[in-house]
Amino acid sequence: MKYCVLGSGSWGTAFSNMLHNNGKSVILWARRKEICKKINEEKFSPYLPQTNINVFCSTDLNECISYSDVIIIAIPVQHLRNILKQIDKHKIDSKIILNLSKGIEISTGKRVSEIIYEFFDNVSYAVLSGPSHAEEVVQKIPTAVTIAGEYAESLQKDISNDFFRVYTSSDVTGVELAGALKNIMAIAAGILDGLGNWDNAKAALMTRALYEMIKFGKAFGAKHETFMGLSGIGDLMVTCNSKHSRNRWLGEQIAKGKNIKEILSQTRMIAEGMYTVDAVMKIAKRLKIDMPISKEVYEIIYRGKTPKESMISLMSRPLKNEWYV
Amino acid sequence: MKYCVLGSGSWGTAFSNMLHNNGKSVILWARRKEICKKINEEKFSPYLPQTNINVFCSTDLNECISYSDVIIIAIPVQHLRNILKQIDKHKIDSKIILNLSKGIEISTGKRVSEIIYEFFDNVSYAVLSGPSHAEEVVQKIPTAVTIAGEYAESLQKDISNDFFRVYTSSDVTGVELAGALKNIMAIAAGILDGLGNWDNAKAALMTRALYEMIKFGKAFGAKHETFMGLSGIGDLMVTCNSKHSRNRWLGEQIAKGKNIKEILSQTRMIAEGMYTVDAVMKIAKRLKIDMPISKEVYEIIYRGKTPKESMISLMSRPLKNEWYV
Repeated sequence: MKYCVLGSGSWGTAFSNMLHNNGKSVILWARRKEICKKINEEKFSPYLPQTNINVFCSTDLNECISYSDVIIIAIPVQHLRNILKQIDKHKIDSKIILNLSKGIEISTGKRVSEIIYEFFDNVSYAVLSGPSHAEEVVQKIPTAVTIAGEYAESLQKDISNDFFRVYTSSDVTGVELAGALKNIMAIAAGILDGLGNWDNAKAALMTRALYEMIKFGKAFGAKHETFMGLSGIGDLMVTCNSKHSRNRWLGEQIAKGKNIKEILSQTRMIAEGMYTVDAVMKIAKRLKIDMPISKEVYEIIYRGKTPKESMISLMSRPLKNEWYV
Repeated sequence: MKYCVLGSGSWGTAFSNMLHNNGKSVILWARRKEICKKINEEKFSPYLPQTNINVFCSTDLNECISYSDVIIIAIPVQHLRNILKQIDKHKIDSKIILNLSKGIEISTGKRVSEIIYEFFDNVSYAVLSGPSHAEEVVQKIPTAVTIAGEYAESLQKDISNDFFRVYTSSDVTGVELAGALKNIMAIAAGILDGLGNWDNAKAALMTRALYEMIKFGKAFGAKHETFMGLSGIGDLMVTCNSKHSRNRWLGEQIAKGKNIKEILSQTRMIAEGMYTVDAVMKIAKRLKIDMPISKEVYEIIYRGKTPKESMISLMSRPLKNEWYV
């Protein structure tokens, strides 16, 4: 199968480069000409400055799609719709779309699969997710992820190699929601890191975060097991703990008293959880799902609540039985 | 209710001191006179050198038991039987035993509740577990744990305070097994930390570790949910990540090429996972439960397998569906 990867951020670049190194035919699509030029001429990406990028990069979206059997999405969810609009519908007809992006669209509350099917009714869809920071994948550090959806077994074979293991699953909704929700939880974990280096409190927060993610997922028919797997707690752990996590970093900066605008001006990277929490709180309100941690993250980011007040709110909830709250 | 805490290691000391600060009547029992003397005369424990210890300490085991309604166990599991032998049976009759210790007895394969009931048939039993490093509890850092068993609600009320939250559960077996098994997994996590600071690989390992813990637990009727709670992934996360974790530290030293005897000679603390893995592998063999991570930890500690070989063994297992392996 031939591949194109849409999106030349760190994950799209690392993933396309890995597929290339696996011996697959793959083209990376970048929106910006200067990025493309750097990759092709200097083998350099500003998002992965310490790695040689060997994949070919193009800015011609529809040419990339015509060439490929599998279209890989690595575009921030809030920008996805704008890119999809530019795609020639019959060029993508009956191809496979593999999504690597994590999030929920604020304006519609839709997951990536739902956005894709709104545009293209005759495609196959799969999603790949799990603890896989690009910075480590390019260094060939052992990594394991989950793939769910159509053609999962064929994709598993093409993508796997000595250091990158792909497990299959059948729960597309669960994999998509777990990937979106964990970014919110990583902001909360970062806030806790910024307040103090509290191992007990952080483990408790992440445990309750998982519970909150499952509760939300179940409202959409996601499976319990998915949240216990690589795309669930696996990704939750890495995003809440890793030095590479942008969402955790955002939370840490907030706890140190920095203003959101000031923080965002320091980085070109996107902390998707900041947008996902907006989408999730809208849905949770409509469906009456109690999301105490997400609510605090929302209040801190959009209502100026102080991180310390939030911690007190979370810790002073009434004592309960652990699972039937 | 009046309390005694058996065992003056870091957790027994921290827990008794917290109960004392909660305004409860509590006596700490220590086996060694010199520890007792230091605590009573200097308010000092060598296990928690930066904390004032205000609880009264005694070396008279049966006096401590006579005095109390609740006997709290904070004794390494492999030594528990020797202490229980010294207890006057009718002094403990119809009292509550609350267990804080985590592990499985190597010689019998028994959990703490099973050892207790072998000695005393007319007691009530509960177990408390979760992400609760003593070093942080004495600093009043927010902590949340699970309690399961008889009188759980009464104990919950006595133990909880502003910074220490106790959630109830009904799954004694699950809480005991999760607490025992996570120590093995923390050794594996430490080994990975020692080999390289790999965030993706560690998250994958911990996810598969949780799956392995559930598989073992289910063979004894433990509940799935318990492993997703504070005494399951909560404790797993803190033990695999924390700077305070002795089991993680042990793994890290092994990966750095140190000899086990040399490592153990450096510390008075006990890394319980080292013993638990022996007990667990015996049980897993008998019941034919596949425990790939525990097996590698066992092979490294008792058979001299090198950590790098083990990593390769784990990563080269065949590609599978995530949950039905």
